[in-house]
Amino acid sequence: MRILSGMRSTGRLHLGHFVTLEKWKELQDSGNDCFYFVANWHGLTSHIDSTENFREWTLDIIRTYIAVGLDPEKSVLFIQSAIKEHAELFVYFSMLIPVSRLERVPTYKDQKEQILDRDLSSGGFLLYPVLQAADILMYLANGVPVGEDQIYHVELTREVARKFNNQFGEVFPEPEPILAKVPRLPGTDGRKMSKSYNNFILIDTDEKELWKMLAPMMTDPARKRRTDPGDPEKCPVWDYHKAFTTSQSDKDWVVNGCKTASIGCLDCKKLLQKNLVTSLSPVWEKLAYLKDNPRVVDRIIEEGNSKARAIAQETMRKVLRATKLGW
Amino acid sequence: MRILSGMRSTGRLHLGHFVTLEKWKELQDSGNDCFYFVANWHGLTSHIDSTENFREWTLDIIRTYIAVGLDPEKSVLFIQSAIKEHAELFVYFSMLIPVSRLERVPTYKDQKEQILDRDLSSGGFLLYPVLQAADILMYLANGVPVGEDQIYHVELTREVARKFNNQFGEVFPEPEPILAKVPRLPGTDGRKMSKSYNNFILIDTDEKELWKMLAPMMTDPARKRRTDPGDPEKCPVWDYHKAFTTSQSDKDWVVNGCKTASIGCLDCKKLLQKNLVTSLSPVWEKLAYLKDNPRVVDRIIEEGNSKARAIAQETMRKVLRATKLGW
Repeated sequence: MRILSGMRSTGRLHLGHFVTLEKWKELQDSGNDCFYFVANWHGLTSHIDSTENFREWTLDIIRTYIAVGLDPEKSVLFIQSAIKEHAELFVYFSMLIPVSRLERVPTYKDQKEQILDRDLSSGGFLLYPVLQAADILMYLANGVPVGEDQIYHVELTREVARKFNNQFGEVFPEPEPILAKVPRLPGTDGRKMSKSYNNFILIDTDEKELWKMLAPMMTDPARKRRTDPGDPEKCPVWDYHKAFTTSQSDKDWVVNGCKTASIGCLDCKKLLQKNLVTSLSPVWEKLAYLKDNPRVVDRIIEEGNSKARAIAQETMRKVLRATKLGW
Repeated sequence: MRILSGMRSTGRLHLGHFVTLEKWKELQDSGNDCFYFVANWHGLTSHIDSTENFREWTLDIIRTYIAVGLDPEKSVLFIQSAIKEHAELFVYFSMLIPVSRLERVPTYKDQKEQILDRDLSSGGFLLYPVLQAADILMYLANGVPVGEDQIYHVELTREVARKFNNQFGEVFPEPEPILAKVPRLPGTDGRKMSKSYNNFILIDTDEKELWKMLAPMMTDPARKRRTDPGDPEKCPVWDYHKAFTTSQSDKDWVVNGCKTASIGCLDCKKLLQKNLVTSLSPVWEKLAYLKDNPRVVDRIIEEGNSKARAIAQETMRKVLRATKLGW
C-alpha cells in the first residue's frame, strides 16, 4: 500500500507522538510504500504567530522520525512547504467542496469551540481539510494512518477524489483511513496533554529530566497513603505502563502491587522509568547523533523532498492533462 | 507604477472588454510597468464544468491582448496557472483573512444571489479575493485597474498586505485601485451583457457578423415609427457611439438626427458600423495573423510566463525569508 501521514510543526514531539510513530514504523517495516511529512503549512492555521520556531520544530520532528526508526532508505521523509505542488492541487480541490460542507466538519466546529487561546477564524483554517486532501491525494496514497478524530478528514478526502474523478476523469484513488490502536496517554497530571498545562513528556529528553516528570506524576487520587490500595484503571501511570511496559510479569507486579498496596506509587514509577529508558535510550542516542550532525539531517530532508517532488510533479501533470489547464 | 490586471478565461472577449483593454493600453503606453494575465484558476470558480474550453478561451484572450496593442515587449502577458507561486502565496494569505470577512465581500453576496445558473458554493469561490490578493501582491503591484465592483477586492488586498507586513515584516506594498472611466456598454437588447442572453458583440468578428448584431439592435422603444423623434439617452446604440464614435460632427449628426427624426435608426447604426469597422479592422488583421501563426502566440506566452515566474520566485524568496518557512 501507498501510505501517507504527517505531523504539524506546532511544537516538539512528546510520548503521545512516540506511540503513533511506532505504528508508522510498523507500516514501513511491513513493506508498505510510506510518505511521512512535516505539515508546516498546516501549522500556520493555529500558530501563525510562532513561525520563528517552525524551523526548529520541523527539525525536531524530522530527527525524531529518523530516531524512532523511520528509515529514509525505505520511507520518503519530507517537508510540506518545500513542495509547492501541494498548494497548486489545493487550489483545484478548493473549487470542488462547498463552504457548507467544510463548516460541518466536526473538528472545525469542535476546535473553534474548545481552543480559545488561538485564532481559528481564518479562511485557511476552514479549508484545512482540503489542503489535507491535496497532501494525501498528491501521492495517490490509499492508506492514511489517523487517530479517531481524523477519520472524517479522510472521508472528505475520498469525497474530493470522487468529485475530481467524476468531473475530469479517473486520476485519484479513494484512500482508506488506517485506524491504529494507539494507547491513549493522558498528561502527567491526568488531564488531556496540552502545551499550556506543561503536562507532557518530550521524546527528546534524558534520564534525569524524565524522572523530574515521572516522580510528581499524578496517581489514583483515592490512594492517599502508602497503605491504601489503588485502582490502576484510575491511574495515569498505569496508562503509560500499558504503552511502554512490555513484560507480562512486570505488568502483573504493577497491578497486583497497586491493588494490594504491596508496592508504593514511587516503586511503580521507578519501574516505568526503567522501561521508558529502555525504550528511549536508542532513540536518544540517535537524536544526539543527528543533532551533532545537522548536515546528515539536511541531506535526508533534501533527498526526501526531491523524491516527493518528483511524484508531486507527475501527479500535477495528470491533473493538468485532466483539467486541460496546463501551459 | 507597477500595474497588474487580468481577465477570467470564461468565454471569448467582447466589446465590453475592448473598452477596458484600451485603458490597459493607455497605462502601458504612458510608461508604466504592466503585468496583464489570464486568470484561468479564477475561471474555475464559476466554470469548473467548462474547462475543455479554457485553452481556446485563454488563447483568444492572449491574442486579443496582443491585437489591441498590449505589447509583449513592454508588458508582461502571462497565464495564472503557469505560475504555481500564486497558489503558494494564496496558502499563506488564506491564513490571514477571517471567514466572516470573506462572507461580507459585496461581490460574494451579490453574485451568490444573482447568478443562479452556476454553482458558486465552493470554498474556492469564498476565497477568490484571497487568490486575487496573491495575484496582485506577487508582482508587488501598486496600481490595479478595476471596475467599480472590484474596488472592494483591492481594499481586501491592501488588508492582506498590511496583515502580512505586521506579522512578518515589510514585504508588500498596499496597491491602489485605478478606476478607469470606461464607457458602460449594455447588451444589444438593452439588457446587461450576458452569455445566456447572447446579446454581446465579440471583438473577434468580421464586418458581416458585426452587422448581423447591429442591424436588429434595440433602440429607444418610444421611437416606434421612422417619423417619431427619439431620445439618444434611452438608446443602447448611442452608448456604443459614445464609446466608438470619436468625431464630434458624427456625434452631433446622431443626436440631432435622432431627436428631430431627420435620420432613421438604420442610418444611425450604419454610422456605428462604419466607425466600429474603423476601430476594429486593425485588431481583426492582427487577430487573423495571430491565428495563422499559433507558434508566435505560444512564444509570447512562454516568454511572458518566464518573466512573470522570475519575479514570482523572487517574491516567494522574500515571503519564505519573512515567514521563516523556507526549505
